[in-house]
Amino acid sequence: MKREELYSGKAKTIYKTDDPAKLIAQFRDSLTAFDGKKKSEAAKKGYYNAQISRKIFEMLEEEGIKTHYIEMESDTDMLVDAVEIIAIEVIPRNIAAGSITRKYPIEEGTVFDKPVIVLDYKSDEYGDPMLNEDITVALGIATYEEIAQIREMALKINDILVKYLDEKGFLLPDFKLEFGRKGGEIVVADEISCDTCRLWDKSTGQSMDKDIFRFDKGDLSKAYEEVARRIVPEIFE
Amino acid sequence: MKREELYSGKAKTIYKTDDPAKLIAQFRDSLTAFDGKKKSEAAKKGYYNAQISRKIFEMLEEEGIKTHYIEMESDTDMLVDAVEIIAIEVIPRNIAAGSITRKYPIEEGTVFDKPVIVLDYKSDEYGDPMLNEDITVALGIATYEEIAQIREMALKINDILVKYLDEKGFLLPDFKLEFGRKGGEIVVADEISCDTCRLWDKSTGQSMDKDIFRFDKGDLSKAYEEVARRIVPEIFE
Ligand SMILES: Nc1ncnc2c1ncn2[C@@H]1O[C@H](COP(=O)(O)OP(=O)(O)O)[C@@H](O)[C@H]1O
Ligand SMILES: Nc1ncnc2c1ncn2[C@@H]1O[C@H](COP(=O)(O)OP(=O)(O)O)[C@@H](O)[C@H]1O
Ligand SMILES: [Mg+2]
Ligand SMILES: [Mg+2]
Repeated sequence: MKREELYSGKAKTIYKTDDPAKLIAQFRDSLTAFDGKKKSEAAKKGYYNAQISRKIFEMLEEEGIKTHYIEMESDTDMLVDAVEIIAIEVIPRNIAAGSITRKYPIEEGTVFDKPVIVLDYKSDEYGDPMLNEDITVALGIATYEEIAQIREMALKINDILVKYLDEKGFLLPDFKLEFGRKGGEIVVADEISCDTCRLWDKSTGQSMDKDIFRFDKGDLSKAYEEVARRIVPEIFE
Repeated sequence: MKREELYSGKAKTIYKTDDPAKLIAQFRDSLTAFDGKKKSEAAKKGYYNAQISRKIFEMLEEEGIKTHYIEMESDTDMLVDAVEIIAIEVIPRNIAAGSITRKYPIEEGTVFDKPVIVLDYKSDEYGDPMLNEDITVALGIATYEEIAQIREMALKINDILVKYLDEKGFLLPDFKLEFGRKGGEIVVADEISCDTCRLWDKSTGQSMDKDIFRFDKGDLSKAYEEVARRIVPEIFE
């Protein structure tokens, strides 16, 4: 049962439960981009993202990857293990898109020979600056051993998702992961959804993710519904 | 003998010689900072930096580290091996200062437990963005093996310089290295001077480097002369 609100982020609200080891993540319809400068809402966004995240976490668990996911409490509310979030946004990149094409001489659409892993410091105050391993350790964010484990998990998750999404008709140029510490273990936390993945339709090349909102590319709710239809068809039955 | 000018950079001019495998680097008195937005000149700066670089390259060679240095052609002109410059600014950091204290929550003066190595893409056009290893390889700048070798060389050079400069009464918060390829080998190139090192006087804590110019902290020529007096006393005899 949801208790007091612990934290309200840009897309989810985190609530305590009766069990201090468990939290509820409520997926909201709110959207923000460009460090909160652009804001909006999209009908059913929270619902679709919660269900897509749920399905992906279940799949990862089946593949032996530990996540914070426990079960759904409602359409939009996910019961998760309370973890100590590691303040890194871990971004596996398969195809160049977004910030990497602006920061470096690399064209949008360039397919990387092998996945490129980027670590950003999760800090609204500092604008999510890129990290390297030495800086991550010097700032006390994680140890070298933890970073190695996070990289390995990220690469494995990327492999699984690229194959899975390909079968559903999507390319996965890049996506963002968060990890947390739970009793000596590192587990996948947060969400894996249309808000945190770049998803391109394989046949049309169209964005079916938050870029629709960032760059006013069309009807976000409709695109997220289409993603949900392919990934969680059971919710439409 | 100097032949046609090959490239005129922010602080040095590179000339061809009769031997295509050798170049002359002429250290100039010009100073630039903040992506070329701030410009000036300082008397004898080129001379002091050339002599300090010469001395440090000689010392590194004695310690078994390959550099591009061959010999001095004049007070300011250094004969070097022509190398294929690897477009990375390699920055070993011992004490937090400068950009790292603005990008991340780390206070100026914080002593790192072990040296932090930062790799920046050497590109005026892109504003020298930070790299990680995956991005460096994806951009074709260097291979993983080359990066490992560069890191190892940078750490060894840092060790040597920290000890050497300590004896001369300086702290070395950070400095910038460039490396080049020369017939299958990686060698230290460019310069190691007051323009490319942060040097703090051990007893007064004062900057004795290009920060004097960046932040209008006093008489740059006088400070560089003092550094030269401690590192290359022979040129004052
Ligand atoms: N299992 C968990 N335990 C504790 N915190 C979590 C867990 N999963 C996610 N979080 C954190 O809760 C917040 C989720 O809300 P969100 O709206 O995505 O926030 P943000 O604006 O920080 O992106 C994030 O800060 C995320 O790191
Ligand atoms: N041994 C070498 N062979 C070829 N190029 C070199 C060598 N050593 C240094 N360089 C390059 O020559 C230029 C030196 O001039 P500088 O004024 O420092 O230029 P910049 O404005 O690029 O910093 C740099 O681009 C540097 O990478
Ligand atoms: Mg978030
Ligand atoms: Mg230079």
